Amino acid sequence: MRDAINFLCEYAIDNGYNLRFALEPKPNEPRSDTYFATIGHMLAFIYTLDHPEMIGVNPEVAHEHMSGLNFVHGVAQALEAGKLFHIDLNDQKGPRYDQDLRFGSENIKSMFFLVRLLENNGYSGPRHFDAHAYRTEDEQGVWDFAAGCMRTYNILREKARRFDADPAVQELLATVNGGNSEHISWLGEVRNGYSKELANKLKEADFNPTALGQRGYQYEKLDQMAIEHILGIR
Amino acid sequence: MRDAINFLCEYAIDNGYNLRFALEPKPNEPRSDTYFATIGHMLAFIYTLDHPEMIGVNPEVAHEHMSGLNFVHGVAQALEAGKLFHIDLNDQKGPRYDQDLRFGSENIKSMFFLVRLLENNGYSGPRHFDAHAYRTEDEQGVWDFAAGCMRTYNILREKARRFDADPAVQELLATVNGGNSEHISWLGEVRNGYSKELANKLKEADFNPTALGQRGYQYEKLDQMAIEHILGIR
Amino acid sequence: MRDAINFLCEYAIDNGYNLRFALEPKPNEPRSDTYFATIGHMLAFIYTLDHPEMIGVNPEVAHEHMSGLNFVHGVAQALEAGKLFHIDLNDQKGPRYDQDLRFGSENIKSMFFLVRLLENNGYSGPRHFDAHAYRTEDEQGVWDFAAGCMRTYNILREKARRFDADPAVQELLATVNGGNSEHISWLGEVRNGYSKELANKLKEADFNPTALGQRGYQYEKLDQMAIEHILGIR
Amino acid sequence: MRDAINFLCEYAIDNGYNLRFALEPKPNEPRSDTYFATIGHMLAFIYTLDHPEMIGVNPEVAHEHMSGLNFVHGVAQALEAGKLFHIDLNDQKGPRYDQDLRFGSENIKSMFFLVRLLENNGYSGPRHFDAHAYRTEDEQGVWDFAAGCMRTYNILREKARRFDADPAVQELLATVNGGNSEHISWLGEVRNGYSKELANKLKEADFNPTALGQRGYQYEKLDQMAIEHILGIR
Repeated sequence: MRDAINFLCEYAIDNGYNLRFALEPKPNEPRSDTYFATIGHMLAFIYTLDHPEMIGVNPEVAHEHMSGLNFVHGVAQALEAGKLFHIDLNDQKGPRYDQDLRFGSENIKSMFFLVRLLENNGYSGPRHFDAHAYRTEDEQGVWDFAAGCMRTYNILREKARRFDADPAVQELLATVNGGNSEHISWLGEVRNGYSKELANKLKEADFNPTALGQRGYQYEKLDQMAIEHILGIR
Repeated sequence: MRDAINFLCEYAIDNGYNLRFALEPKPNEPRSDTYFATIGHMLAFIYTLDHPEMIGVNPEVAHEHMSGLNFVHGVAQALEAGKLFHIDLNDQKGPRYDQDLRFGSENIKSMFFLVRLLENNGYSGPRHFDAHAYRTEDEQGVWDFAAGCMRTYNILREKARRFDADPAVQELLATVNGGNSEHISWLGEVRNGYSKELANKLKEADFNPTALGQRGYQYEKLDQMAIEHILGIR
Repeated sequence: MRDAINFLCEYAIDNGYNLRFALEPKPNEPRSDTYFATIGHMLAFIYTLDHPEMIGVNPEVAHEHMSGLNFVHGVAQALEAGKLFHIDLNDQKGPRYDQDLRFGSENIKSMFFLVRLLENNGYSGPRHFDAHAYRTEDEQGVWDFAAGCMRTYNILREKARRFDADPAVQELLATVNGGNSEHISWLGEVRNGYSKELANKLKEADFNPTALGQRGYQYEKLDQMAIEHILGIR
Repeated sequence: MRDAINFLCEYAIDNGYNLRFALEPKPNEPRSDTYFATIGHMLAFIYTLDHPEMIGVNPEVAHEHMSGLNFVHGVAQALEAGKLFHIDLNDQKGPRYDQDLRFGSENIKSMFFLVRLLENNGYSGPRHFDAHAYRTEDEQGVWDFAAGCMRTYNILREKARRFDADPAVQELLATVNGGNSEHISWLGEVRNGYSKELANKLKEADFNPTALGQRGYQYEKLDQMAIEHILGIR
């Protein structure tokens, strides 16, 4: 696999083709396992190539859900690594065959957070609907299916916008994310990099587990706010 | 197991206790498989007891989702059999351990159809929220969690009512369910029971697969209507 | 479904056909869930038919494994209920599409206990190999596949026979199953049915949880013996 | 996470500690998803660190099986990347909670190929048995459990050695892996790297799909040989 991709990259370079390639992970195909089963395995493989800058991933909702994995986490990892070249939007009922259902027709909550991730983090690549209509449909049913994919994406985009603009959500996120506990707020300094001083500060710190354990994180309240935004109640 | 339940029933009868027992299926417990893994296995077991009329089931959202099964189908089978004594409402992210998440926090679509099933079919038993708050919560977070379970149930009940009352849904369901194909509408006579005449009619029928195959079933349109009711767009 | 099966039974009776029907459960088919997803759901359905004595099940290894369920438990339940009419032998890698792999090529331990169950409990129905060879095979490969299914069944049958005949296994099973704890051995009387006397004996019993908790059940030793029989080491 | 690991590496360097760190992927913990869910996601993360040479993985049988993934593929990818620092050996029944069962007590075939991978590819790190005995065991049962883990590893190592030394296996592998089709044997030249000449040879090649399609790959025969080695029949 590595030799083949390296060969392909050299061929594109040698011919002056300004190309990038996106690899699509999938855990299994009839009738057994494939290599590079998930977004993670494929990203790890890409770093071992001769021209990693030419290669990215094309994740698919259904493929990652076939392994019961959190698709939003995987896509976020690819996006942060600059490797999200394409994305295949469809839907899936848990770990079984590859279903390619209408986008947003099953995992409504995950798809809400997926759309929010894509819209808020500068993703500018294609949004493919790699899905197909139920076998029961005539031609009009296929058009209904296609319109449904696009409508649901747009609905979720608007809901994500409203969720982020909701003052109650903003206030709760500010509280949840931070700083309201004097005991640990300075831990964020770790993000500025190592220093001997900070290491000593950590070693000498007198954390108070009892006090820290009394803080409520309000994740139930926050998650319920998200659910109610999704349901159109807020 | 059978001997124990039979003993228990006789004991209740002997003592004049007016009791019924509800058995709760679950596919696995730390650290391995259990007998009577699903609603189906438990119902089948009940029919082999000495006093099946005293025994029903107490299905749980999370338990059936641990096997990747359709909970709404299983609950409907129990309800139709007169065996839905209790129900445990919570939520679950697919096949892993028993999560007991806040009701409606994950499988929004399934929970919509579950609430609609319970509300439309005369279920009058308890609606338990057999769930628990995230470990991150303080006391207020537990109350937020409890309120969230109940709010989401009520929201979904109201959405189910609106879905059923939507004239566009009613019209589409009338078309989908029925009668619009002269080729097969009389097949419903089978539901009135066997007769030699109907058997002969079936044998002599001249079905037209080509014509039947051209009919679109409009399930994509119908499912999208359900999604938009859930999302609060219709 | 019920009306259709009832109609079919009446038709067979009316025509004097000496037939029985076996229903095959499966959790999902492209592209979604089916009713009567498991052996359990199908057995429960059968009890609600007009002629349950004419209807049984045809369980399939792959179908039950698609739900992550214990196939041996399900088959045992059907067998005990007199409802195991056929059985489809193949293999499957966990919850994904229906793979129909060569019998015994994946879940070696489960297939060992399945063969032991069938051989030791008087099952006299067909042993179908509802499987197909890898797509990579030529005609000879298909014959290799078919021979492999049969060879592995016969190998496991012989291993089951040796496991049951192993004096160390017999001795361990006698210890594990019973009677070695004076505190609870009389509990087996429950299997003879209810009596007021036994109920009182239970109420007045002075169990000793500390003593009971000290007993080791030796399941690790027993399971390792099974593994070593499977591996051909004992 | 990245900032924390980078800080830790700098701390070790600053203090002259000759340390390496192994990160252990896991898809979910009570009660929800974790970041870096699989071997793949963790490897991909490591490549983005400031000191990737100090960081590797500690994969666990049960964790990867919780996602229904092929553990042998994942471990091979880590091993090839020089990142297999430790390994946690136990066993697991498919996608549910983390079971930590006795090594080799469930996925016998996968564990055979895992042991063969470790033994044949120069892995010299620790072989942890990160497992625990059934709750039913007394102290002797825990020792039985520990001995079982080690015995099964050694049994599988010996079986792997015999499998590789079996002349019938060697002959079949030589046929399967290669060279027996004149139509495609030169394709292996791709592994020597790109050249304009080879690219042209590929473009001008006249492949014969009909002839290529007639070749049987003998994978059923090969897999059955592996099964019979595992069962101790060959």
